Amino acid sequence: MAPIDDALLASILRRSRQNNEVLGITGILCVQRDPGLFLQVLEGGRAEVNRLYAHIVGDARHYDATLLDYAEIDARSFTSWRMGSVDLDKVNRSIVLRHSSGSAMDPYSMSAAGALAMLEELASGAAIVNKDGP
Amino acid sequence: MAPIDDALLASILRRSRQNNEVLGITGILCVQRDPGLFLQVLEGGRAEVNRLYAHIVGDARHYDATLLDYAEIDARSFTSWRMGSVDLDKVNRSIVLRHSSGSAMDPYSMSAAGALAMLEELASGAAIVNKDGP
Amino acid sequence: MAPIDDALLASILRRSRQNNEVLGITGILCVQRDPGLFLQVLEGGRAEVNRLYAHIVGDARHYDATLLDYAEIDARSFTSWRMGSVDLDKVNRSIVLRHSSGSAMDPYSMSAAGALAMLEELASGAAIVNKDGP
Amino acid sequence: MAPIDDALLASILRRSRQNNEVLGITGILCVQRDPGLFLQVLEGGRAEVNRLYAHIVGDARHYDATLLDYAEIDARSFTSWRMGSVDLDKVNRSIVLRHSSGSAMDPYSMSAAGALAMLEELASGAAIVNKDGP
Amino acid sequence: MAPIDDALLASILRRSRQNNEVLGITGILCVQRDPGLFLQVLEGGRAEVNRLYAHIVGDARHYDATLLDYAEIDARSFTSWRMGSVDLDKVNRSIVLRHSSGSAMDPYSMSAAGALAMLEELASGAAIVNKDGP
Amino acid sequence: MAPIDDALLASILRRSRQNNEVLGITGILCVQRDPGLFLQVLEGGRAEVNRLYAHIVGDARHYDATLLDYAEIDARSFTSWRMGSVDLDKVNRSIVLRHSSGSAMDPYSMSAAGALAMLEELASGAAIVNKDGP
Amino acid sequence: MAPIDDALLASILRRSRQNNEVLGITGILCVQRDPGLFLQVLEGGRAEVNRLYAHIVGDARHYDATLLDYAEIDARSFTSWRMGSVDLDKVNRSIVLRHSSGSAMDPYSMSAAGALAMLEELASGAAIVNKDGP
Amino acid sequence: MAPIDDALLASILRRSRQNNEVLGITGILCVQRDPGLFLQVLEGGRAEVNRLYAHIVGDARHYDATLLDYAEIDARSFTSWRMGSVDLDKVNRSIVLRHSSGSAMDPYSMSAAGALAMLEELASGAAIVNKDGP
Amino acid sequence: MAPIDDALLASILRRSRQNNEVLGITGILCVQRDPGLFLQVLEGGRAEVNRLYAHIVGDARHYDATLLDYAEIDARSFTSWRMGSVDLDKVNRSIVLRHSSGSAMDPYSMSAAGALAMLEELASGAAIVNKDGP
Amino acid sequence: MAPIDDALLASILRRSRQNNEVLGITGILCVQRDPGLFLQVLEGGRAEVNRLYAHIVGDARHYDATLLDYAEIDARSFTSWRMGSVDLDKVNRSIVLRHSSGSAMDPYSMSAAGALAMLEELASGAAIVNKDGP
Repeated sequence: MAPIDDALLASILRRSRQNNEVLGITGILCVQRDPGLFLQVLEGGRAEVNRLYAHIVGDARHYDATLLDYAEIDARSFTSWRMGSVDLDKVNRSIVLRHSSGSAMDPYSMSAAGALAMLEELASGAAIVNKDGP
Repeated sequence: MAPIDDALLASILRRSRQNNEVLGITGILCVQRDPGLFLQVLEGGRAEVNRLYAHIVGDARHYDATLLDYAEIDARSFTSWRMGSVDLDKVNRSIVLRHSSGSAMDPYSMSAAGALAMLEELASGAAIVNKDGP
Repeated sequence: MAPIDDALLASILRRSRQNNEVLGITGILCVQRDPGLFLQVLEGGRAEVNRLYAHIVGDARHYDATLLDYAEIDARSFTSWRMGSVDLDKVNRSIVLRHSSGSAMDPYSMSAAGALAMLEELASGAAIVNKDGP
Repeated sequence: MAPIDDALLASILRRSRQNNEVLGITGILCVQRDPGLFLQVLEGGRAEVNRLYAHIVGDARHYDATLLDYAEIDARSFTSWRMGSVDLDKVNRSIVLRHSSGSAMDPYSMSAAGALAMLEELASGAAIVNKDGP
Repeated sequence: MAPIDDALLASILRRSRQNNEVLGITGILCVQRDPGLFLQVLEGGRAEVNRLYAHIVGDARHYDATLLDYAEIDARSFTSWRMGSVDLDKVNRSIVLRHSSGSAMDPYSMSAAGALAMLEELASGAAIVNKDGP
Repeated sequence: MAPIDDALLASILRRSRQNNEVLGITGILCVQRDPGLFLQVLEGGRAEVNRLYAHIVGDARHYDATLLDYAEIDARSFTSWRMGSVDLDKVNRSIVLRHSSGSAMDPYSMSAAGALAMLEELASGAAIVNKDGP
Repeated sequence: MAPIDDALLASILRRSRQNNEVLGITGILCVQRDPGLFLQVLEGGRAEVNRLYAHIVGDARHYDATLLDYAEIDARSFTSWRMGSVDLDKVNRSIVLRHSSGSAMDPYSMSAAGALAMLEELASGAAIVNKDGP
Repeated sequence: MAPIDDALLASILRRSRQNNEVLGITGILCVQRDPGLFLQVLEGGRAEVNRLYAHIVGDARHYDATLLDYAEIDARSFTSWRMGSVDLDKVNRSIVLRHSSGSAMDPYSMSAAGALAMLEELASGAAIVNKDGP
Repeated sequence: MAPIDDALLASILRRSRQNNEVLGITGILCVQRDPGLFLQVLEGGRAEVNRLYAHIVGDARHYDATLLDYAEIDARSFTSWRMGSVDLDKVNRSIVLRHSSGSAMDPYSMSAAGALAMLEELASGAAIVNKDGP
Repeated sequence: MAPIDDALLASILRRSRQNNEVLGITGILCVQRDPGLFLQVLEGGRAEVNRLYAHIVGDARHYDATLLDYAEIDARSFTSWRMGSVDLDKVNRSIVLRHSSGSAMDPYSMSAAGALAMLEELASGAAIVNKDGP
């Protein structure tokens, strides 16, 4: 939960977009700077997504990596982003509030359906960007 | 059922909005001045909503506090209001009439579904305000 | 089935609107002048609607009063009218034709669903008026 | 709500069964002796059921006759009875309790669905008899 | 969360059954002795259930009273019990495990649907008794 | 995909059952001896299941750990087993065949629904045992 | 509506069964003797059923031939009968009553669904015979 | 299947519209000139539609009259036409193609649903006219 | 459509069962001897089933090979048979009749749903055998 | 999987459009030039589509012809094209990506539903052309 600074975020996004191009993975990465927190969607082939998730779980810089949902899908929802980024600190608070039981975002306590609904609401707005960093 | 005057209403709304900010609670409060009557929606975490409701039930200024519905929800509906207020005396009467069996509003005899439909109709109109009082 | 003249219709509507205001009843009254025929919707509390219907059944000027449907409803549909009136002789014939098996309107042979669909089509058009008479 | 004695009940059932044979009407009559109360189902042709209901409404011995439900049905449910009778004072109290909000039966406050469910539960048990009286 | 001894439980059940007879309330009370915990179902009229719940909330011997669900129902499910009691310490652990995310029962973290499913599974087994105490 | 011998399997099951008792996790472990292959179900709290899965992914003795499905559930299905074991080599082949596109079991190519259906069919039969090993 | 005597019925059934064998048609024929009335089901290929129906309509011995329903079906329901016969005068009256609005059977006023439900109830009982006549 | 010339078509439409006015029947008549073929919709009372269909079946100028569907309807779809006419030779071919298995229209091989869908597509376009003939 | 003699059928079944064991294919083969006709179900992997079907289409001894249905399935239905055989000449005729428009089986005119329903009815009876031939 | 050059594609499209006009077949042909790959939809009568598919399977220039789906349809979706062509190399990559698990299109691993969704998305865009070739 240490703060996430610009350099770290930019490096994560840059490497993630390079890898995802190769792996055929799409998705978005929501970031809260302090306390540091990621909420991420990955879409792609079963083997590729699992290999990437194993990599994330094994990455010593993360901890408490927790799946909220994992399912076979009929079609991808986030094809516009190799790894779009959302700065949760700049997002309209009512989006977070609508899908949270408390005032602050706590993905660990969100239902899978609630997290997906929030991510779709973010994706349908203008909150997602493709540039590598802040 | 004593009349509700401006001072009382303003004080209820002011304190309610302060508390709800802290508790992460949203909702609206419909007020009928005379005979005095409140119809209220609270959205938030289970523990916070229950604690607030216990406070309302124990408040000697209210009586006959009655739940019409209580349920886990997928998403909040009233995120625009820490505690929006609706002056039922100024609302289009056909909204009340559509969801009541008689001419006057009697929430004690409303079905849960009917009360929710009326509250949603109020929320989708311009009847809800955020200012503290009359 | 005797013809219904202007004076009779005006008196029925006037008294009906006065009573419905008190009883919290809304609805519409479709009138065919000759042969005389009424098709009516009443919305309101269970006790009030039953009391009014008993009054209609006991009124010597009517006969063959027949219920087509009676049900608990989630919300009223005719809140704009204390007792709106529809002159069936002036209504677009295709509305009547769409919901009738023959060319002329015969509510006694209409299904409950057919009658409701016709009344909703009338209500959504401009066929209903509030003035007391012809 | 005056008490209903054996002679009255027997006379009502006898006449009802004679008339229903002619009118093609079937149904059941639930009786509570004191305070006197009837809960009745009528099944049959639209004209016949309406004519019989007008008769009931106009009968000076009844008051507060109130419809709970009235609908077109796909098939009758009570074909075994010209007018079966149920003595509510002898019925298993848990049947009444299951469909009532209070301890005593109060059909005026029952929902249409609740009343129908109770009547079907009575019909599927052995509570209904065909003999004319107590 | 103080332990609940036999005398306390017997007194709660005795008084509860007396009151519920008068109020027309049915339900069951699941008890865990140590740490002390109640999980309770109340069925009855809206006014009666609310009045009883206000009493429970205001009872200094309880704290953290929390509603899991509250809804209008079509029919009662627990008509066999004025207030049946379930000793959770003696119940087959797989029933609790099936509806809990952890090994121990923690109703505060149960979903409304999960709690209801567990209560129905208890009711359909032989776990509920009517005697006043241990 | 190296063969799994009795000692390895017994040690996995013994440790798994000890841990699951503490973590409140239930499930089953299907084993194919040669080529070595596990198909496993874990049920429990979100945090516990994720922590255990991270442990599995990081365990150097496994590779290609692949999630087939991960979802919030209304109730557990495998409460009878801390970690039941299924010897796929001894299971009726028509169970495997029914849910596979080829003759041999290949979970990597199974749909999530197909794998769940096969596991439920195994659980409803007598294929699952609790003893620690062969 | 002239009475139908044994000779007529036997001749109709004999010829019908011969023809249906050739045409691949199955079904049942319900007969009321006096006043004479047939209610018939025909199942088969589109061309064959239409050719047979044209024959029935053009047969001077029938009049007022009226279709109640005609539809493409997923599977036949009456494969046991080339043309089973039902003597409506001998059938349990409650079957007719259940699907009729009056006491006597009047197929002209039956809904398609009601007629089909009655025919299926007849078919599932022992009312249908295959012998040629009375 | 003989060609249909203008005089024949005009005479059929003229007489059909006169009769339908009296019988309360509405519908459309699709005509293919050579080989001559009609596809027709009739809407109206059960007795009237059956009488008209018997007349069509018995008319020596037609042969192979075949019903594609016949059903009770909630509301008419073709109230704008006493008997609207569609010249299939002038209709956009993709409408016919969409609902046919081959290139040419062959109603005898169309499913009921396919024929209805084609007729509704024709009715919602500008293909239907009311004038008596070519 | 030449007759199918015992030698041909036995050779087809023998080779088919050998191949299907290797390909992981299951299914049944319905045979009508004269005129010769096969109706077959194949279940298995996409590539295997397509390769086998290409082989059937290219086999000079068959002609007019026609697919009735082809779909991804959740689970196989015919796992008991490498290639079960059904002698349609010995099957209860009412099974064929129930799913055919005419008296004789004509799979070319059967709907996909009708053919599947007939095959499932055959499979649930005792009509399918595994021995290689007559 | 050899590359597909302009001459080959033009000749395939020309002949396909000629044949389809005669057979009443419509559809689209998606082409990837290198490695060469076709994804095709055929709509039409059962016999015609099967005959054409047998021809494709038997055509030595193709191999690994694989059905993704085959079903009876209520209406055609591609009536605008005798055989529309789509150059997959020029299509918006996000359409392919949305329905693929990897970055490149691999129809052999697509689900039937995914392939259909991609084809419909292509058809609703401007990707399909009718000219014979590149």
